[in-house]
Amino acid sequence: MAEEVKLIGMWVSSFSLRVEIALKLKGVQYEYIEVDLTNKSPLLLKSNPVHKKVPVLLHNGKPIAESLVILEYIDETWKDNPILPQHPYDRAMARFWAKYIDEKCVPALWKACWCEEKEREKAVEEACVCLKTLENELKDKKFFGGESVGFVDIVANFIGFWVGAIGEAVGVELLTRDKFPILCKWSDEHVGCRVIKENLPSKDKVVAFYRTRVESAS
Amino acid sequence: MAEEVKLIGMWVSSFSLRVEIALKLKGVQYEYIEVDLTNKSPLLLKSNPVHKKVPVLLHNGKPIAESLVILEYIDETWKDNPILPQHPYDRAMARFWAKYIDEKCVPALWKACWCEEKEREKAVEEACVCLKTLENELKDKKFFGGESVGFVDIVANFIGFWVGAIGEAVGVELLTRDKFPILCKWSDEHVGCRVIKENLPSKDKVVAFYRTRVESAS
Repeated sequence: MAEEVKLIGMWVSSFSLRVEIALKLKGVQYEYIEVDLTNKSPLLLKSNPVHKKVPVLLHNGKPIAESLVILEYIDETWKDNPILPQHPYDRAMARFWAKYIDEKCVPALWKACWCEEKEREKAVEEACVCLKTLENELKDKKFFGGESVGFVDIVANFIGFWVGAIGEAVGVELLTRDKFPILCKWSDEHVGCRVIKENLPSKDKVVAFYRTRVESAS
Repeated sequence: MAEEVKLIGMWVSSFSLRVEIALKLKGVQYEYIEVDLTNKSPLLLKSNPVHKKVPVLLHNGKPIAESLVILEYIDETWKDNPILPQHPYDRAMARFWAKYIDEKCVPALWKACWCEEKEREKAVEEACVCLKTLENELKDKKFFGGESVGFVDIVANFIGFWVGAIGEAVGVELLTRDKFPILCKWSDEHVGCRVIKENLPSKDKVVAFYRTRVESAS
C-alpha cells in the first residue's frame, strides 16, 4: 500500500511550520490541507477533537495532534536525517529546551507583542529574560542542534522568523542585535537554511496579516 | 564506574513521584534527596537553574529536569520494563495524553481546588470536562497503558491519588463514582498497584499538609 501522509495546517501558524520543516527534512511527500480557523473543517474537528487545533498529521488515515508529539512521531517513523540527537542525555536536553520554548518563550513573546500598552514594559522584560536564557544556551553553536538544524531549531522557528514579523506589525522590536547578538546570528542562519527558507511565507505577507489584526482590534 | 543516580524531589510533589515510580519500575537504585521548596538548596538551583523546581534526576552527575523529559530519559537509558509503548503511533498517543494531563487537567483540577469561592462552580465544571475526556479515553482499558501501568498512568498519578487527598483537605470532591466510574476504577487499580503503592505518602499526611495550607490562607 502506498503511504498516505497529509498535514492539516495553517499558513500563518509557526506550529504547522514545524511539521512541514520536519517532513521536508525527512524527504517525506505529503498533501497539505490548509484550514480556515474561523470556520473549522469537519476533518480538523474529527482529527483533533480534544484541542480542535492545527497542526494534525494524518498518516495512513491515523491522526496525530500537537506539534511536539508529531515531531517525535516523524523522527521515529522515518529514520533518515534524525531530528533528535542520538544519545539519551542529548535527547533529554533537546526536549527540555523545546518544552521551555513552548511553555515559557512563546507565551512571553506573544504577550509582549499583544498585551495592553500599560502592561508592555513588564511583558517585554519577561520576554527578554526568556530570550537571554536561549542566548546563553546557544552560546557558540551554529544551531541549537549543533552544525545543522535539529529538534530545538525547528521548534524555535517562532523566534527565528515570526517574532520579527509580528513585532514589525505591532511595533514591538524584541530580538535586537545589540541585546541578543547570538540569537540574531542564529536567526539569520535559521531563515537562510534551505529547508526552512523554502517553507516560510513571505515576511511582508505575515506583517500584513497581523497589521489587519491590529487594525481590527483597535 | 558504578552508576550514580540521584533524585532531587519533594514528598508532596506528584511530579517527583512520577520519577520515583519510573525508577522503581525499572529497578534502578537511586539516592533520594528531599528539598525544602521554601529554602531551595544550592544543589537544586545549580541543577535546574532555569526553573528551580523539582524533580531533577542526576545521572552520573548530569542533571535532567522536567518530569516528562526525565521519564523519556529513563525509558531510553534503562531498557527493561518499557514505560512507553513500542510502536510510534502508540507512543505518540501516550505523549499526547501526557501533555493533555499536564497542560489541561492538572491546572484545571488545581484551580477547582484552590480558586476563590465565587469562581468555584465554573472551575469545577472545567475540571470535569477534562476528567470526562480522560474517562472517554480510558474506556474499557484497565490502565491507560493497557494491562499494566505505563507512561500515561505514571503521569496521571495526580488524578489517581493527589486530587482525592487535596480535595478532602479543601472540601471539593471532583473524582466521584457517579460521574466518573471508569476513572474511579482506574484510580483504585492505580493506587493498588505495588510499585505505586510503595511510593505513595499516606493520604492522611497529604490531607494534613494541605489542611495547614488552607488554614494559613484563611
